[in-house]
Amino acid sequence: MTDEGPLTPRVTGTVRIVGAGLLGASVGHALRARGADVVLEDASPSQLRLAIDYGAGRAATADDAPTLIVVAVPPDVVADVVERELRAFPDAVVTDVASVKLEPLRELVERGVNLTHYIGSHPLAGRERGGAISARADLFIGRPWVVCRDGKTPASDLALVEALALDLGATPIEMTPEDHDRSVALVSHVPQLVASLLAGQFADAPDGSLRLAGQGVRDTTRIAASAPELWVQILAANAAPVVDILDALSQDLAAVADALRAPEAVGARREVADTIRRGNEGVERLPGKHGQNRRFASLVVMVDDTAGQLGRLFGDLGALAVNVEDFRLEHSPGAPFGLAEIAVAPAVLRDAITGLEERGWKIASTTND
Amino acid sequence: MTDEGPLTPRVTGTVRIVGAGLLGASVGHALRARGADVVLEDASPSQLRLAIDYGAGRAATADDAPTLIVVAVPPDVVADVVERELRAFPDAVVTDVASVKLEPLRELVERGVNLTHYIGSHPLAGRERGGAISARADLFIGRPWVVCRDGKTPASDLALVEALALDLGATPIEMTPEDHDRSVALVSHVPQLVASLLAGQFADAPDGSLRLAGQGVRDTTRIAASAPELWVQILAANAAPVVDILDALSQDLAAVADALRAPEAVGARREVADTIRRGNEGVERLPGKHGQNRRFASLVVMVDDTAGQLGRLFGDLGALAVNVEDFRLEHSPGAPFGLAEIAVAPAVLRDAITGLEERGWKIASTTND
Repeated sequence: MTDEGPLTPRVTGTVRIVGAGLLGASVGHALRARGADVVLEDASPSQLRLAIDYGAGRAATADDAPTLIVVAVPPDVVADVVERELRAFPDAVVTDVASVKLEPLRELVERGVNLTHYIGSHPLAGRERGGAISARADLFIGRPWVVCRDGKTPASDLALVEALALDLGATPIEMTPEDHDRSVALVSHVPQLVASLLAGQFADAPDGSLRLAGQGVRDTTRIAASAPELWVQILAANAAPVVDILDALSQDLAAVADALRAPEAVGARREVADTIRRGNEGVERLPGKHGQNRRFASLVVMVDDTAGQLGRLFGDLGALAVNVEDFRLEHSPGAPFGLAEIAVAPAVLRDAITGLEERGWKIASTTND
Repeated sequence: MTDEGPLTPRVTGTVRIVGAGLLGASVGHALRARGADVVLEDASPSQLRLAIDYGAGRAATADDAPTLIVVAVPPDVVADVVERELRAFPDAVVTDVASVKLEPLRELVERGVNLTHYIGSHPLAGRERGGAISARADLFIGRPWVVCRDGKTPASDLALVEALALDLGATPIEMTPEDHDRSVALVSHVPQLVASLLAGQFADAPDGSLRLAGQGVRDTTRIAASAPELWVQILAANAAPVVDILDALSQDLAAVADALRAPEAVGARREVADTIRRGNEGVERLPGKHGQNRRFASLVVMVDDTAGQLGRLFGDLGALAVNVEDFRLEHSPGAPFGLAEIAVAPAVLRDAITGLEERGWKIASTTND
């Protein structure tokens, strides 16, 4: 794997983690792997026990003097717990990892809590399943970790939270709470709702209709499988920015629906074309691999649906010194084989095709754009 | 590859293909590969020349007596071309491959054309890029091929069109034009518009916001990269069923937006939870691999971003006799490695983990549901 340097923690002193679920326990595992002293607390004794048993840290004691406190509790109770921790440990820096930043901050300000040593943060990481049992030391590796300091934040406090992010392999990104919340509304909360709303249309659809579903609709609705409980809290806590985008989306939807109500009217087809074209522009702007908008050439190879076939394919690609930039395995409903779509640098496309065909692979298609 | 039996065509006689673009030329290549006699025609002499040069068939002559005619022209001109072909070749069976079935049929009925030998069909296949140059003999393999006969369709005509689908490796599915159009509106046309509308919100978004985008939103908006020209024709031709679903979607969107306007009101959180839960139900119903809703266990393996790493991984999986049911490569923005998510049968999950760890792989996470 990548060279992470000597396994000593950048964070100094004891780190106290409140909330030993997926995120909290994952922070614990990652810090423990670097040798940091980690103490854990959780409102649920059984969750706490599990996190300790799995090695995420030790049980908190009355003598602990943490330098850094990580609050990793559900969004609904973040403000309560941050306030309690700031009061209990006035010398510690307190951060939280909730996916909404403005609402808890507003609550804390309203209560008149001294927030000098509070820095909200948000690692863009997660899994479909929660709980200490799902925690992984490498959950945060390579992920953005948003840090929301303000003008009064001491430089040493900021450095400590950024050291935490770096210890976990994440990339710290400074943003205001407002910018953060608008950003996650746009790239996470609204996409979740849109996928759910679209997939919701299939709930009562005839079986026969769904037989015609292909990879496109499966991709579009994949995240609709997310669990409701957490999303209700997230969406409620970030309601205003989410509603703004939903309203814009609703207007755009109404415009294209109206155009399709009279598809032969003047301007109707242009409205539809503009919708698709604007989508082209938007999707082009999403960061892809390595955070860039690099475009790759792709080739689609037919593979039997048996163990070893993909091994042989990737073995051949390795022998051809072709680096696989991206890979997707597409299944044909009812067929005993799949289509392996492989993205490669445009410069190596021709050699990859020639080499694979020489080795007996059937190339179903290629694109180079 | 799979055993396709002896390469003799099921279709008998000469097949005439009108429209030598992606679909028409692909039909030609597949039939030629089985030794069928294929003649081609296209309004564009250069497209026709290209399709013939690539081996999709021969140029049509005055002496041709086709048994089957495949109309593969843009949706806007399907009715015109089908009418012309039925009149020119009264003994032939005429089918088309347009992605909308009711609108061309309605036009043909209005014109009083004798439709005894017309059977509309629609192969659920395509690529991002069009034209004869993108055509592939295996474009239709494993795909559903909808066939719309009516009560007056002679059995031998139906058999000929189904023979065509089978020759191309597709799975014939009988549906009425109404059911077909409603089905593709639901699983293809509306998802395309929804992805485009969502991605459209990113067109003018600040760069900083988009830095937080992850795999979820990338999947949700992937098909927003589709080209506008064809989609405008498809959506205009299937406007009524598309509008019905857009209206339902718009109502659901308004309901959840209203709930989020007052997230603390009685019933608001339940409305949001119901939206996510209904999405859960809908996405569960989409057919997955092999047309079933089989659930797989998955494991996530960390892989270096270098040539040969995936080859080694799949080689090891092959050596462990683990069949890869699905595969997704996820990149961490800014990190020099990726996460390979591998779906396997639940029964082999434990052996796969043990075997891979013994071979030095770092398992980032596993799920088994």
